[in-house]
Amino acid sequence: MAELSVRSVLVTGANRGLGLGLVQHFLRMPKPPQWIFAGCRDPKGQRAQELQNLASKHPNIIIIPLEVADPSSIKAAAAKVGEHLGGSGLNLLINNAGMVKSNTLDTETLEDMSEVYTTNTIGPLLMGQAFLPLLKKAAQGSPGSGLSCSKAAMVNISSIGGSISSFFGWDIVEAAAYRCSKAALNMLSKCQSLAYKEHGILCVALHPGWVQTDLGAAAGHPPPMTVDESVQGMLKVLSSLSEKDTGTFLDWEGNVVSW
Amino acid sequence: MAELSVRSVLVTGANRGLGLGLVQHFLRMPKPPQWIFAGCRDPKGQRAQELQNLASKHPNIIIIPLEVADPSSIKAAAAKVGEHLGGSGLNLLINNAGMVKSNTLDTETLEDMSEVYTTNTIGPLLMGQAFLPLLKKAAQGSPGSGLSCSKAAMVNISSIGGSISSFFGWDIVEAAAYRCSKAALNMLSKCQSLAYKEHGILCVALHPGWVQTDLGAAAGHPPPMTVDESVQGMLKVLSSLSEKDTGTFLDWEGNVVSW
Repeated sequence: MAELSVRSVLVTGANRGLGLGLVQHFLRMPKPPQWIFAGCRDPKGQRAQELQNLASKHPNIIIIPLEVADPSSIKAAAAKVGEHLGGSGLNLLINNAGMVKSNTLDTETLEDMSEVYTTNTIGPLLMGQAFLPLLKKAAQGSPGSGLSCSKAAMVNISSIGGSISSFFGWDIVEAAAYRCSKAALNMLSKCQSLAYKEHGILCVALHPGWVQTDLGAAAGHPPPMTVDESVQGMLKVLSSLSEKDTGTFLDWEGNVVSW
Repeated sequence: MAELSVRSVLVTGANRGLGLGLVQHFLRMPKPPQWIFAGCRDPKGQRAQELQNLASKHPNIIIIPLEVADPSSIKAAAAKVGEHLGGSGLNLLINNAGMVKSNTLDTETLEDMSEVYTTNTIGPLLMGQAFLPLLKKAAQGSPGSGLSCSKAAMVNISSIGGSISSFFGWDIVEAAAYRCSKAALNMLSKCQSLAYKEHGILCVALHPGWVQTDLGAAAGHPPPMTVDESVQGMLKVLSSLSEKDTGTFLDWEGNVVSW
């Protein structure tokens, strides 16, 4: 299995949880990316302190202000990333930013349904559109045929909570808004895989496991996995993907998750 | 197989297409419902003329102003339906109202994604919440245990376009907003089936076939099925459902559609 080797990566929601974990693991790679773009809603805020500290020590981390629910913020971010990259493309886009509301089915509202969908589903759609030119450029600039994450890929961090058939954890947390948004994100990943295959871009949905993050803890039970375990697993999975895997839904160990 | 026999039914989007077809088929039943509530966004508009004509001849049709994207309209509709029913419950809620935007993945926008999701997914959620007391009442008032559509049921008109695995018609129409909303609606149906089972309410998602309606024609190809064929099939399927079918995704012939 080839090591994941990218010149550039963008991670959304990079200031904490899995996003921050991904940035840290990219830094620790034998051959770290030349550019690690860390998308973050509020780079000056208290919750971005750890990311700021990291960036002050590693000049290959570039913090990009990014609110994935805001099309103009996404466009501005794409322009900034493009400037940094000069003429080269973006190898890897990881749509990690996400949110959850711990409602029961009875307490869901139009506002919560809409907000969660905008961040978890519409955000990754708009990110895909805005970064498509840079991903295409990376695909064109990479040698060899076939798809891979080292060449050009869009990775959507989904959840087994969005698997309609396995339906994990209903007795623990209903969170219909979250489940619906992740089922829709899985559908979006399939759409992206079909639309972007001809451009040489691999698209995949990943279930990171039930992880000790703010989001993972929203269920009120301590999640079993650490961020490190999850991120290590996901990066190993990403390194192993090829053309046959585009459009699939995999967990952090590489197992296929049923829709 | 028992004939579908309900005292009361509410169909959303009842002024045309499948909704109007459902109302017409309920009227033609050997034992038609005592109350056929026909939800319609603009009962006075040109596009409700056929429904108005029908209602003028059949006093068991009660037209209810209903915009499923508007929580206050839904609440008002539930109050009106409750008044008509007096002390009795609502047997069958058919969430049929839906919309499509014929975008490609590249031309989707936040606005279109959001509008389609609100009507196709959030609407059925809010309808389920608002009509739950009336559906519960119908379940409590019906003899026998087990679930059935003659007793109390929530039916979501979904689409094979929302099936992530079968992925019907991508080469004809991409319509990612529609596909995402229907995948999410399938998830919602599963959530509803789990939450409402204890109340004696059956919940199911139906694929009506590719039907000659305004919505079906949005793909730009003439759809193969008539409204009559689809509605006849769906009502036959509904009449056959029991406890084991709650939470499933079926087509107009009763075949299981994969998620």
